[in-house]
Order: sequence, then C-alpha cells, then structure tokens
Amino acid sequence: MRVLVFNAGSSSLKFGVFDLPSTALGDAQERVRGTLDRFGPEGCDLKLLGQARRRAEPRDLAEATALVPALLAKAGLDGFDAVAHRIAHGGDRFERATVLDDLTLKQIRALTPLAPLHNPANLAAVKMAQQLWPDLPQWGVFDTAFHLTNPARATTYAVPEAWRKAGLRRYGFHGTSHKYVAQRAADALQTPLRDLRLVSLHLGNGASACAIAGGQSVDSSMGLTPLEGLVMGTRSGDVDPGLFGFLHRQMGLSAPEVEDALYRDSGLLALAGVSDMREVEARAATGDHAAQLAINLYAYRARKYVGAYAAAMGGLDALVFTGGIGENSASMRRRICDGLEFLGLKLDDDRNTTVDLRGRAAPQIQAYGARVNVLVTQTAEQLMIAQEVAEAMRAARPMPIRRLPVAVSARHVHLDRAAVDALFGPGYELTPARPLRQKGHWAAAERVTLEGPKGRLEHVAILGPLRPHTQVEVSRTDSFALGLDAPVRQSGDISGTPRIRLHGTVGAYDTTGLIVAARHIHMSSEDARNWGVSNGDMVDVCLDQTARGLTFTHVLVRVSDKATTEMHIDTDEANAAGIVGAVEGEIMGDVAITRRHG
Amino acid sequence: MRVLVFNAGSSSLKFGVFDLPSTALGDAQERVRGTLDRFGPEGCDLKLLGQARRRAEPRDLAEATALVPALLAKAGLDGFDAVAHRIAHGGDRFERATVLDDLTLKQIRALTPLAPLHNPANLAAVKMAQQLWPDLPQWGVFDTAFHLTNPARATTYAVPEAWRKAGLRRYGFHGTSHKYVAQRAADALQTPLRDLRLVSLHLGNGASACAIAGGQSVDSSMGLTPLEGLVMGTRSGDVDPGLFGFLHRQMGLSAPEVEDALYRDSGLLALAGVSDMREVEARAATGDHAAQLAINLYAYRARKYVGAYAAAMGGLDALVFTGGIGENSASMRRRICDGLEFLGLKLDDDRNTTVDLRGRAAPQIQAYGARVNVLVTQTAEQLMIAQEVAEAMRAARPMPIRRLPVAVSARHVHLDRAAVDALFGPGYELTPARPLRQKGHWAAAERVTLEGPKGRLEHVAILGPLRPHTQVEVSRTDSFALGLDAPVRQSGDISGTPRIRLHGTVGAYDTTGLIVAARHIHMSSEDARNWGVSNGDMVDVCLDQTARGLTFTHVLVRVSDKATTEMHIDTDEANAAGIVGAVEGEIMGDVAITRRHG
Repeated sequence: MRVLVFNAGSSSLKFGVFDLPSTALGDAQERVRGTLDRFGPEGCDLKLLGQARRRAEPRDLAEATALVPALLAKAGLDGFDAVAHRIAHGGDRFERATVLDDLTLKQIRALTPLAPLHNPANLAAVKMAQQLWPDLPQWGVFDTAFHLTNPARATTYAVPEAWRKAGLRRYGFHGTSHKYVAQRAADALQTPLRDLRLVSLHLGNGASACAIAGGQSVDSSMGLTPLEGLVMGTRSGDVDPGLFGFLHRQMGLSAPEVEDALYRDSGLLALAGVSDMREVEARAATGDHAAQLAINLYAYRARKYVGAYAAAMGGLDALVFTGGIGENSASMRRRICDGLEFLGLKLDDDRNTTVDLRGRAAPQIQAYGARVNVLVTQTAEQLMIAQEVAEAMRAARPMPIRRLPVAVSARHVHLDRAAVDALFGPGYELTPARPLRQKGHWAAAERVTLEGPKGRLEHVAILGPLRPHTQVEVSRTDSFALGLDAPVRQSGDISGTPRIRLHGTVGAYDTTGLIVAARHIHMSSEDARNWGVSNGDMVDVCLDQTARGLTFTHVLVRVSDKATTEMHIDTDEANAAGIVGAVEGEIMGDVAITRRHG
Repeated sequence: MRVLVFNAGSSSLKFGVFDLPSTALGDAQERVRGTLDRFGPEGCDLKLLGQARRRAEPRDLAEATALVPALLAKAGLDGFDAVAHRIAHGGDRFERATVLDDLTLKQIRALTPLAPLHNPANLAAVKMAQQLWPDLPQWGVFDTAFHLTNPARATTYAVPEAWRKAGLRRYGFHGTSHKYVAQRAADALQTPLRDLRLVSLHLGNGASACAIAGGQSVDSSMGLTPLEGLVMGTRSGDVDPGLFGFLHRQMGLSAPEVEDALYRDSGLLALAGVSDMREVEARAATGDHAAQLAINLYAYRARKYVGAYAAAMGGLDALVFTGGIGENSASMRRRICDGLEFLGLKLDDDRNTTVDLRGRAAPQIQAYGARVNVLVTQTAEQLMIAQEVAEAMRAARPMPIRRLPVAVSARHVHLDRAAVDALFGPGYELTPARPLRQKGHWAAAERVTLEGPKGRLEHVAILGPLRPHTQVEVSRTDSFALGLDAPVRQSGDISGTPRIRLHGTVGAYDTTGLIVAARHIHMSSEDARNWGVSNGDMVDVCLDQTARGLTFTHVLVRVSDKATTEMHIDTDEANAAGIVGAVEGEIMGDVAITRRHG
C-alpha cells in the first residue's frame, strides 16, 4: 500500500511517500521526504532527503503543493493508494484516521475557531490535493486524536458551563508524535506499552509534554489551543489568566492583540531575543543573563511537568525526549533531569552526550541501575500518519459477527481466609446461596458492610469461592459515598489500592484491594479461536440494543477453557448504557490492530 | 507589645488583638478575635471568639471598621502599640512588614491594577483606622512578601519584555498563611525549617500551593493575580490563555467580562453549582456526576502541583494541609494523597479521619514508616501578621557596627588524594605557590581543566591543602559555559551534585562535587562574640562602597578560632555589586530574628 503524506503548516509544507505492508505486520519503507519553507516573493527553500537544500519557485503553500506531482514524477513515484493529511485540530469528534469527504471537511472547518492558525493551512492543502488527485481517497489524521482518551479531570477547565458547552475544554496536540515516540520507547525497552507509565517531552519549535499510561494519553500540557503548557520558541506557554485584564487596563491591549503576542512574540524569543535554542545556548555560554534565564525557565517548567505527570500516573517508568531540542541538546536534557533523582531518574553523562539517532534508534541514556529509563528518539510524524491511514484502510474490511451476553455486576467482595476468620469467626465456612454463570462461582448467603472515611455501604454481597487476596469491587458512585478514590483496575491487579474497613457478624477487617472493576470479557477458548481473539486482547464492544446505545472501548478479554463467554460491566456503566434486563453486545473492528496499539 | 490586627477582604472584616513578648522568645496571646461579614441593607453577621454568631448594624466595611473601637472597649482592651493591616498585593517592593505612611500608601495604591478586588478594600480599612487611632503607627503585612524569595525561573512569564517591565511577573499570595504553617510544621516535626522541603496546600475559598525549601518560598501556584493555579470556590485556576481569543470570537465576550467570570462564576461553583466543598461532597455522595467531577478535578490539580513542586525542590519531606477544606475534609486530603506513594507519601487512615486541631495542634497523619510527613494545621494569619509587626518594631532598635572585608573567589577546585593521583600521577605532591588570607590555605602552582557536555574551562586554580572530597567551585556563568546545572551550595555540602571531568598533566578524573559556592563569612570567635553572631547564623550584608551597592541576604556565618573574619562571594556576585579592588561590607539587622526564621 503506497501513501502520500502532506503535513502543511502555516509557513511550511512537508510531504513524504511511504510503502506499507498489507497486513499489520512488517515495516514501512520511506520513498521520499521533502520540505518546502521560507516562502517569499522570490520563491522558497526546498529540501529533499539525501539532497542539498536549494531554492525553488513556489511563493506560497498553494504553489508548493502544486509542485509536488512534478517532484514525485522526477523520483519515479506513482500508483498511490491514498493521500494522508495532518490536521491540527480534530475537536472531540475525530478519534482516528478519517476519510475526508464533504461532511467531514465541513466538520473540520467548523473547528477553525479552536486552531485559527493551523486548521486553515491544513484544509488548503486538502483542497489542492483533491484537485491534483481527484480519484484518490483523501484521509485526515488529527493531532488531537491521541489525547481523546484523557479523562475528564484532565480535559475539563473549571469555567462556566456555557463556555464548556461551546467547546472550551483541553484537547492537547502533537498527538501523532507522542503516540509514535511512546511506541518507539516501548519497543526499545522490550516492554508492552500497556505496562508502562511514560512522559513524552516533544521539544521543538512548539513544545508539549504528554503523560501516557498503559499506551493511552492521560494528560498533556497543551490545552484548548497550542498556547498552553511549556515555554516554546515564540509561544508563552502557561500564564496567569489575569494577564489579559492587567494588560487591558495598564497598556490598553485588546484580547486579540495579547493573544497574537503570546503566539508570535513570546517564549524564548521574548526572553532571550532569539527563538532558536541553539542560539540561546550559545549566548548563555558567553554570559548573557537573559539567555541563561530563558534556559533555566525552559528546563524548570519541563521538569515540573515531569513531576506533575508522575503524580498523575502514580509513578514514572520512562521519560522520552524528542523534537529538535529534545533530540539535539544534551545540555537541556541534563538540566531537565537534574533534580529528578527522587523519582529514581538519573542520567548517564557519557550516554547523554553521545546520543546517535541514525536508523530510527531510541538510545537509553539513564545511569546503570536507575529505576526510570530515559530515552531519546526522533519523531516521525509523516511515517505515523501513513501508518494510521494504512491501518484504517485495512480495518475497513469485513469482520465476522461476534455477539455475546452482557452481565451487570453490582458491588461485591471476594474474601480471603484471613478476612472470613476476622469477619465471621475463625474457620467459618461461607454458605453458597446462588450459583453464578461462570462455573464453580457462587454468591454467599452472608453479607458484609463497607466503611470509608465518608460513609458506609450495607448488605454487600460476598462472591465465592475464597481467593488468595481479598478484593472489594464497587462502582465509582459507591466510591464517592465511601469517600475513597478507588482506581479502575482489572480483577487481581490490586497493588497500591486504597485501604477499606469491612464489618462482618463477629468483627471488622481492614484491607487494601478496593477497586472499580474494569470492564472485561470472560471468553471460552472455542469462541476465542473462532473470533480471532487472544487472551489479553483489548476489544471494543458495541451495545446497540439498549435505551442509550454506546460502545465500550478497551475491554479486556480473558480466555479460559472453563469460561462461559460473557461481558461484565458495573452498575454505573449499565446506567450509562440504559440497560434493562438481558442485553447482548458485539465485538467491533480489527482486533489485531487494537492489539498492536495496546 | 499589644497589636490590633485588621484583615479586610472584599466582603468581610476580620480583626484580632494580640499581646506579644518584647523579645523574640515567648508566645503570643490572643485577646480577642472577631469577624463581620454578609453585609446588606439590614446589617451584617458578627462572630466573636467564644460567643454565638449574631446580627449587628454595620452595612458595609467602613461601618464595620467604625464599630471595632466599641467592641474592643466592651472587651476591656486598650493601650495598643500598633495597628497591623493585611495588604493583599505588595508587588516586588514590600518584602517585610512596613510602616504605612503617605509614601508607602501611595506605592501600595499604585499596585491596585495587580489586585483590583483586594487592595482597595485593604486601603479603605487603613484609612478608617488612621482616623480612629491617629496616634498609633499603622503597619502593613503583605500576602506577596513571603514569595519574594522565589527565583527568577519561578517568577518570570515567557512574555514580551515590555509587559514584564510593566510589572507582569508571578507574585504569589497567601504568603502569610504559607509561612505560618511551614513554621508550625517544622515545630511539630522538631526539625529546623532550613532542613525541610515542604509543600503547603492552603485550601480555602481561595486556594494555593507553595513550595518551601530551606524556609524560603521557592514557588507558588498563584501568579500575577490570585486567579492562577488550583481550582477554587468561584475562581478557575489554570486555563489556556487561548481561552480569551476563543470566547471573544465565539461568544463576543470582552477580556474584562471573561476575567470577571473567571473570578466569580468559575471553579467549584461552575462545575458543581455550589462553591462550598462541603455541599459539593454531599452532592457527590448522592451520585451527582457534576459534583463528582468537580471533586476529582480539584484533587487532581492539587496532586499535580505536589508532584511538580517535589520536582522543583528535588524531593519532598513534608506536605501540609490548611484552610477550610485542607483542615476539615479527610476525604479530600485522602484523594490528593492517593497516588503519591512513589514519593514515599502514604496516609494513615485512622489518623487522617480523626484529626483534632484544637490548641494550635499540627497533627501528623502519615502512615508509620512513610518517608514524607503529612500534617494538618489551622492557619492563623492574624497572629502571624501581629508577630511580623512586633518583630519589625523590635528590629528598629539600634545595632552595633559590624564591618568586614569582602573577598572575591574566582573558579577553583579543592582536590582529594585520589584526584591528585589521577591528574598528576600517583603520590604527586602539589606545589604551594601563594598563601591565602585564611591561615594554612594556599593556591597551588598546578592548574586543571574542567570539561562539561557543552565546553571546557582551562587553567583553573587548585587550592590546598588536600580535602577528604574533591569539590569544584564555579560561577553560574561558568556552569552555562560547561553546560551543567551546578547548584548553589555551602562548601562541603556536595551530596547529589553534578558529575564533571577534570584534566591534569597525566590524566583525567571524573567526579561529583560541582557547585556554585554559596556566599559565606569566615568569622573569628572573638568577632562572633562581640557582634552577637553564632556559627550557622544567616545574616544580611550590605555593600555600600561599591559602584553598584547592594545587600546580600542569607549569608552563612562559619565561626572558628582559626578564622580571619572575611566574606567570600563569587565573580558573578562581585560583578553584580560592581566591586573593584578591596571593599568592606556591613552586617545588617537583628541576627536573632533572622535566626528564628531560618
């Protein structure tokens, strides 16, 4: 499959051609890579991979796009299957690569107020490409898509509801880059992405930090727009919102004037007089105090985001540097990491100063024995865009129908021997009262009471048989009634979970193991074989027969010879889906692709 | 000393009377405490310590202030030595308690654009108090003062220079509260404040986080105005600065309209419909999703600040909760702390749910064996304001003249045996070439070269005799030339310092121990006795004979029988002071007070 990629910015056009395998396995081959920038009345700069930079005729983005067919013909490249475009802002609608037709282009145009500088440039390139290749499908890949998994606590601003309804929320950008370098890091560490808590620092002319847990973006430093977060080349990053009122009263500046200066005249440029970090570092070394402060501020803000995201994820396994500054400044990497020893993060100075990124390498630069891995890798947004489109095209193929029953689990506990002894008396045996659908499992006649710092829940069911460790499964609503912050976890994964008190007929028992059970599917080995699903896969399940139809994404599959195929959700999820009585769900999409992305 | 304290907000007046000891030792006694609030055409609420809340006549702040003399007379209180006022914004000028006269009041009025809601209310109370007690000195204590020690990397926004020159920087607020609870925590932990890295979370109707290292505020979450940072009762905290442009284009809102809504209609009120956390928690427990999100968001933001400030300080020794929510919500404390186990922070649930704050207690609620201490304590801003004023009045007394020579240290190294062996050959003995002023110390004839990831420094002096550990002392400018982030440290305090390579005549030697030497004074025992100074004191030294006269604050004193009294600064500091040739400095202020505050 051959994909032509366009990445059109406000002042540059990048393009590339990739040959991709027809299955999810195998590597992509880059056939050509080009950049056109520095547009002016006299033409522009053109840089093709493997050639020296030279001058070319195009004076703007439209002319640059029009030149691409000739450049491709000269390279002997034709027979494209699709054109793929980077789109900066996809709002909360576009969560994956999408065919750009009249409907979707209209939806993207409606998002222009959210990215007034970036989206129009992207759309102009789409329009040109449609004219140049009218028979090819045009696809969009969105910088915001990777962050749509961010939880509400990370995406919500504490502002009036009317504003939030108008689209004011945190989106995050650089998603394609963060997703790519996270995969590169997982590959280099030979650890599944789903077992890692990563912070990715994309430090280029624009800069952002991203917290990635279990392969999903959970927070990122850019928000509604690409202004929020880290200090950038010409953008301010975080400022006090009171700045607008102050500048209005003191200097008579309007909101658009302030915004324009925050985009174009701020960041390193404002602090040090130049926006390029190489130049800032050179000035700092000669004793320029403004440049020294710019470097300190840049590193300090990045270091604070690493600490904040470690707190957001409950710890840190790896830190990944990418983007021009992240890839090339050993000194900036060192400054950001110094002072993070308390996280178990420590650089090896020789490794840090001798980083070699040729051949898509992702070298590790942490000190021997450091708990947190530190990696450096080049980002490859064009490649990633091509891969996303190829996968989406493969996923469009027909799938077998895979339907299964959905059961709702109310709050319950699984007890271990010590818990039963403490709650009901030494050696007490629970009374099986009602068999469950999974063979050998039952609900007991006995009940327990749960107690948290805020309240109690009475008559909570006990499910048997006994387990090696006590586990308490409640809904999110229950956890607020108890006043405890129960994490969403798969059954059995209870390390570091909150402590709770149980009351039985003869005594109380304090235990960790409080969780909100993650949705999961018990699946017989036979069904798994027939449906092309393996133990540990994450699948999407659509419930279309309910009052409030919805699709549950990232549902874990647990395959066992003894299992009866059935999906388990909790009461909050059942309410969200409007479930009344018995319902069925259907596994959607290409499981092999979901598997690859963790 | 008897001090009357006024704390006038935009919608309430608090006052108190304190009797303070005439020396820095001994405790303050609170004589009366009162709050007048909920002003309306029918009057207001009045709450006096030890009495039930009742209605009173004042309809506004001016009438409330005018009622205070009668309330004090009824309590039998007179003979005041001073009136002390809380002032919200002191800009970058007011770093300690200050007498309010025509000049200083004019300077405070000029700061109104920085705190348009708060400063005018404070100034109105000052004016009333001047009329009521024309013979008493009026003092101001500033919410911003504690944060003036924040380094430039924490106070600087990456915005155009013209804006920064107009006063646009981070100031921070709640300083009096953060300073007080940090002292309370240090007392409760029986550890000097200068040995602690603390995060203080002041969670009231307004909310802020503060990073306090060595007794000094090093960062805080409120910035230019009290809008930035944590989610608050009706304030948004952090938002994307792109929000203003978006709301302008989409909803036609002006910057003042947006700012007003961010102050009054945002925060918990916007998310949950009520601004009081007790009510939000009650709604969340009944399954209200908006209230649940508000709680999650509030805790998540606070938790991220704790992680960020741990990164800012290189670790965390204690977390302190104060303010209405911090003092009273065991559930919120728990939510903020859950997930911070990677810092070595773990709550004890029983301690957390049974906090008792009577009698100025500061109970510890961390689990047994946890590395980070967690404390809860009531804030006492009025008491702190009274103490600050009493200390300033004591410090106004005359002091002996204490002058000493100031010497400039250029970059140099102290070597250990292993370093000399590696650099100059096994068993090599350095050649003393020039004696130094401190007896028995000398500069060697040999030189070394320093090498960092960015560059080299040649011909660096070696000072003898040999030491147990190699130590490399450079200026901040040097550290940028090397590309290393050398911390400011006292000589000998080299744990966790960066690694650097030294080159000698026969080989290279890699070592930790790179520091920017903290300014310090070597002092003979005799001078120390005469001047009332002890080993380990921090003093302020004024250089008034130089081209660019300035005062060096927090200079460590090292007393020794062998020492020759002399202050050491580095080349950057000498340049800053414009030193040419031999100069003298003078120790300023009351050393006993500086000692108490670390």
